[in-house]
Amino acid sequence: MNPTSPAQLRQWIAQGQWPGPTSGVLDDYQQANLAVVPADYAYDFLLFCTRNPKSCPVIAVTEPGNPFVGGIDLRCMLARYRVWEYGELVEEPCDLLQRWPGDAVAFLLGCSHTFDAPLRRAGIPVAATAPAVYVTDRLCEPAGRLSGPLVVSMRPVAAAKVARAVEVTARYPTGHGAPVHIGDPAQLGIADLAKPDFGVLPPMAPGAVPVFWACGVTPQLVLPKLKAPYVFTHYAGHMLVMDERVDEM
Amino acid sequence: MNPTSPAQLRQWIAQGQWPGPTSGVLDDYQQANLAVVPADYAYDFLLFCTRNPKSCPVIAVTEPGNPFVGGIDLRCMLARYRVWEYGELVEEPCDLLQRWPGDAVAFLLGCSHTFDAPLRRAGIPVAATAPAVYVTDRLCEPAGRLSGPLVVSMRPVAAAKVARAVEVTARYPTGHGAPVHIGDPAQLGIADLAKPDFGVLPPMAPGAVPVFWACGVTPQLVLPKLKAPYVFTHYAGHMLVMDERVDEM
Repeated sequence: MNPTSPAQLRQWIAQGQWPGPTSGVLDDYQQANLAVVPADYAYDFLLFCTRNPKSCPVIAVTEPGNPFVGGIDLRCMLARYRVWEYGELVEEPCDLLQRWPGDAVAFLLGCSHTFDAPLRRAGIPVAATAPAVYVTDRLCEPAGRLSGPLVVSMRPVAAAKVARAVEVTARYPTGHGAPVHIGDPAQLGIADLAKPDFGVLPPMAPGAVPVFWACGVTPQLVLPKLKAPYVFTHYAGHMLVMDERVDEM
Repeated sequence: MNPTSPAQLRQWIAQGQWPGPTSGVLDDYQQANLAVVPADYAYDFLLFCTRNPKSCPVIAVTEPGNPFVGGIDLRCMLARYRVWEYGELVEEPCDLLQRWPGDAVAFLLGCSHTFDAPLRRAGIPVAATAPAVYVTDRLCEPAGRLSGPLVVSMRPVAAAKVARAVEVTARYPTGHGAPVHIGDPAQLGIADLAKPDFGVLPPMAPGAVPVFWACGVTPQLVLPKLKAPYVFTHYAGHMLVMDERVDEM
């Protein structure tokens, strides 16, 4: 079952007819991370995004209480969500239709799924599954009440193709842009590539170099620290698929 | 009198020993626009910057009440300022030492002076004086209480060099990045290039193409509409010169 357009995919999701992950679906369309916070916390988070643009490239910010971005209903057009209350993860529901408070401000942030297709066209194979994701020992720039570690996604790239991978991804700031680190995982505090914090390590061909990009999972580690009355995000890998092609962004 | 470093220039400015404009001074160092608003208005302005990144590329945002960015005292290390109260321009002082309220949040935004030196090195002559600046009939993306027209700076470029000018400036998002418009001024609502709203039209060689970049004057047209108790900005052309070279940004 392959959707022919982002609108069709989002409709299937809203009707509960899509299994969830969006990696490898609808090549070339912008995918987005979701983060929703009370208006009182929106300045801190927007400042955090401004100071950490590679982790949190802002695509859109809604007006308080408005769950729509154009015709997209953010409450039900992602396949799965996570809900925190006062810093505790309380639920991972398939929609937020019953909970979108009047002060809810939604942020759409870029996602690295966005550059998988351009990488493949440049002769760099990328697994269709979600990439391996690691929590590093580097800290993001803090902002107000928000601080936390840099999270990265890793894709193995043949040594001869690493420069090309940099060139291609640098073109897509809404896909997290150029890598933040190339090579030695230990320098990021990653002891064992085989044990990612999220996702699964893809096969590493002999001579492949691990290439690390800033990852949109970063806010999910940072936002609960606010201990805000509520924080909503998408569930990892279950992104919003937007109508814009990456080259339009 | 030519300063040998940004620190020396800022010291001269703080001591009242520098005439004012910073165009053509200390090539290759990042220059910045200043905008200061009460904390209650900071979210709207940060969102405005996020939605209009070419006009308002954010370099730094201070904590409320703190007038320092590293060792730079924002109250006296720019040569001249503008002060609005409830939307009215009330003063254009040489320092803000007596007025930096406890809730003042300062934004440093990129400035196109920053790419003049790289343009010259690419064989594209740029006048040492401040560029001609025009208020266009295009609107910025609004944010909360903030809206207003796109303001542009114009530099004439030989037709054979226009593509190079795009390539060079695209590398410097903190210098407003690639042009927003190339050619016909009428399409921006500019009736007569010889009558800029700010600055002076530089000589146009025969066959030169007018190339337009988003301009950091934009906030000065937008912020007074807030009618906030106070808004401070730099005085046009009298920028903060930072310690970072543009290629480090």
